[in-house]
Amino acid sequence: MSIPLKVKGFQFAATAAGIKKPGKLDVGLIVSDRPAVSAGLFTTNKVVAAPVTLSSPRVRSGLCQAILVNSGNANACTGNDGLHDAHYCGNLVANALNLDPELVAVSSTGVIGFRLDVTKFDAAVPALIAALSAADANPVAAAMMTTDSFAKVSAAYGSLGDTEYTVLGLAKGAGMIHPDMATMLAFVMTDAAVTKEFADFALRRAVDRSFNRITVDRDTSTNDMVLLLANGASGMPEIKAESREAEEFCLLLDEVLLDLAKMIVSDGEGATKLARIVVRGARTEADAKRAACSVATSSLVKTALFGEDANWGRIIAAVGYSGADVNQDLVDILIGDIALVRNGLGTGKDLEAEATIIMHQPEFTITIDLHLGDAEYDYYTSDLTYDYIKINADYRS
Amino acid sequence: MSIPLKVKGFQFAATAAGIKKPGKLDVGLIVSDRPAVSAGLFTTNKVVAAPVTLSSPRVRSGLCQAILVNSGNANACTGNDGLHDAHYCGNLVANALNLDPELVAVSSTGVIGFRLDVTKFDAAVPALIAALSAADANPVAAAMMTTDSFAKVSAAYGSLGDTEYTVLGLAKGAGMIHPDMATMLAFVMTDAAVTKEFADFALRRAVDRSFNRITVDRDTSTNDMVLLLANGASGMPEIKAESREAEEFCLLLDEVLLDLAKMIVSDGEGATKLARIVVRGARTEADAKRAACSVATSSLVKTALFGEDANWGRIIAAVGYSGADVNQDLVDILIGDIALVRNGLGTGKDLEAEATIIMHQPEFTITIDLHLGDAEYDYYTSDLTYDYIKINADYRS
Repeated sequence: MSIPLKVKGFQFAATAAGIKKPGKLDVGLIVSDRPAVSAGLFTTNKVVAAPVTLSSPRVRSGLCQAILVNSGNANACTGNDGLHDAHYCGNLVANALNLDPELVAVSSTGVIGFRLDVTKFDAAVPALIAALSAADANPVAAAMMTTDSFAKVSAAYGSLGDTEYTVLGLAKGAGMIHPDMATMLAFVMTDAAVTKEFADFALRRAVDRSFNRITVDRDTSTNDMVLLLANGASGMPEIKAESREAEEFCLLLDEVLLDLAKMIVSDGEGATKLARIVVRGARTEADAKRAACSVATSSLVKTALFGEDANWGRIIAAVGYSGADVNQDLVDILIGDIALVRNGLGTGKDLEAEATIIMHQPEFTITIDLHLGDAEYDYYTSDLTYDYIKINADYRS
Repeated sequence: MSIPLKVKGFQFAATAAGIKKPGKLDVGLIVSDRPAVSAGLFTTNKVVAAPVTLSSPRVRSGLCQAILVNSGNANACTGNDGLHDAHYCGNLVANALNLDPELVAVSSTGVIGFRLDVTKFDAAVPALIAALSAADANPVAAAMMTTDSFAKVSAAYGSLGDTEYTVLGLAKGAGMIHPDMATMLAFVMTDAAVTKEFADFALRRAVDRSFNRITVDRDTSTNDMVLLLANGASGMPEIKAESREAEEFCLLLDEVLLDLAKMIVSDGEGATKLARIVVRGARTEADAKRAACSVATSSLVKTALFGEDANWGRIIAAVGYSGADVNQDLVDILIGDIALVRNGLGTGKDLEAEATIIMHQPEFTITIDLHLGDAEYDYYTSDLTYDYIKINADYRS
């Protein structure tokens, strides 16, 4: 049972349009009661799906009022026909709601290379609009799922003076070895009032602290997008940049996005563990990031997490090939608060046994201290399991 | 049953010293009847095992006469004690054979972080020396195995004038997602006569055309090494650089190393498929390499190979995030000779069905044509299977 989630001035609806298996929610609609200030971050993949091509300039122009999302078909590698289909679906929403089409974003996730059956949207869009309700965003999160095992929602609440506001996030994506190869979609709605510039700043900051820490930058899918819509419906005055209120808003947005990001990792396909990889004592933040990313994406480390094996040799090897500046004689490695390695040398079987007990838990932290400087970075990763193979060897069949 | 493999002027022995489970071959010795011209390539990992620290300057100095190799323990992350142990084992060989210790290379593979039990070498080295025989190199290849399911040997034969010579290679390593994270060892012995400079050139060229095509450069283990020993025992005159004979020698060396490299991939932990990934039509060779490497290391592609799923969406997505220059509207993708994608668009279900039939085979080629230039690069990869997880989640236990 999910708790109903709402945010002032936004309505939600989801339906089973038959794009996935019959009866599965697969199309969702989010509508603001007024044009919302919008910001968006999109895939850096050079193979870009039609909905990204369509929505990116619209969202970046600074205003958006509706988001139409479907799962089951990515509308990627579909050429001009696919772009036409994306326009067609967006126009269905715009016409029915009497909106400028430029205020409608569309988003898709699912299998690459097949055209959308737009006739399914002819029936679905009127049904969605009839079902729009401010009562609960959860069904939209459910309609975004592909290999996800649960719908991902998170909310945080703030205030400016006497006015309360909400930051509500919905996400889709199942963490992977290279997490971003799975399409990652996230939509964040808030009734706070912000400027376009501040929305851009706050979204980029929050993504850098969340989704970009579960992600190898190069590994972006054809369809990834993160959208922020701020409609000001709370009635609050506009948040001033660089104010205390602005900082509070950023922290709430960070919190919601990090919460969603961690859900994506812990719902990693077949995952049974959520590990935070912290590299500290690096000479530069870039080095800390390289080393953390290298450990977090190592298949050998990830299978050892699954095997609950405190195999620090794989961790130090991944640090060593990361490209970060490393002096092997200075490296410490901890699992939880148990030091497995001091100055590059193992601390013995007894401490390994203690670390193994920590690895029985579903969540734990692995810390690597390079003792070369002050820089730090963290990454979240999951284990690599039999079910990962099962899910991905069979996904299309 | 393996065919006996020999090369003039070299003797071989292997024994079960008890470093692995009792009765398993785990220490091998290769001895040339004279100092051989030597060349070596070593791990670029910043965490370097003791045997690499010891052997790299010795081999690079240009002469080597014996190689002592063990499996079961990598002697990595063992500090000064580990370096002392490596010296100790090398000295056992040098003393028993009355060689300058500088002519002895040592090499280890196995678990990281535990000291070698050198007392096992006190007994093993005399036994190895007593057993030295020119009759067959196969037992040494067996003694190098860790998670390998078969010993990897390859030989090629050439001639200069009336003199025949042999290039004999032994290798160890099981391909992985990032193949080099497994320690990769290869020892190549030849009775050809070459200069130090030519040995360096020929080895680097052959490694670039073989092991580096199953490898993400950054993903090197703490222990990797490839050694070439050329003792001239065939009696042939020294091969002149840039001659026809030099080219023939290079081709033989390429052939042996590529053969071993393909064995490593097809013995990929749990692998059931060997796929050659060819990228052509790239603007630069660097772009072709990036794209081929990206496809070859994609976990989603590798699980699709296991599932025999002609899921070209995962292939084009991996090309798209590779960093290579790509125009998605020009991309063709073929499995075998079946074009699944033309100009970035799928060619339909019938051709996918034909491609799926090709994917039932244990070996096939996936070709990606970017249609942007003339550059080409290829990579070998394996599928990602349940057994990969099983092997690596359980490896130490």
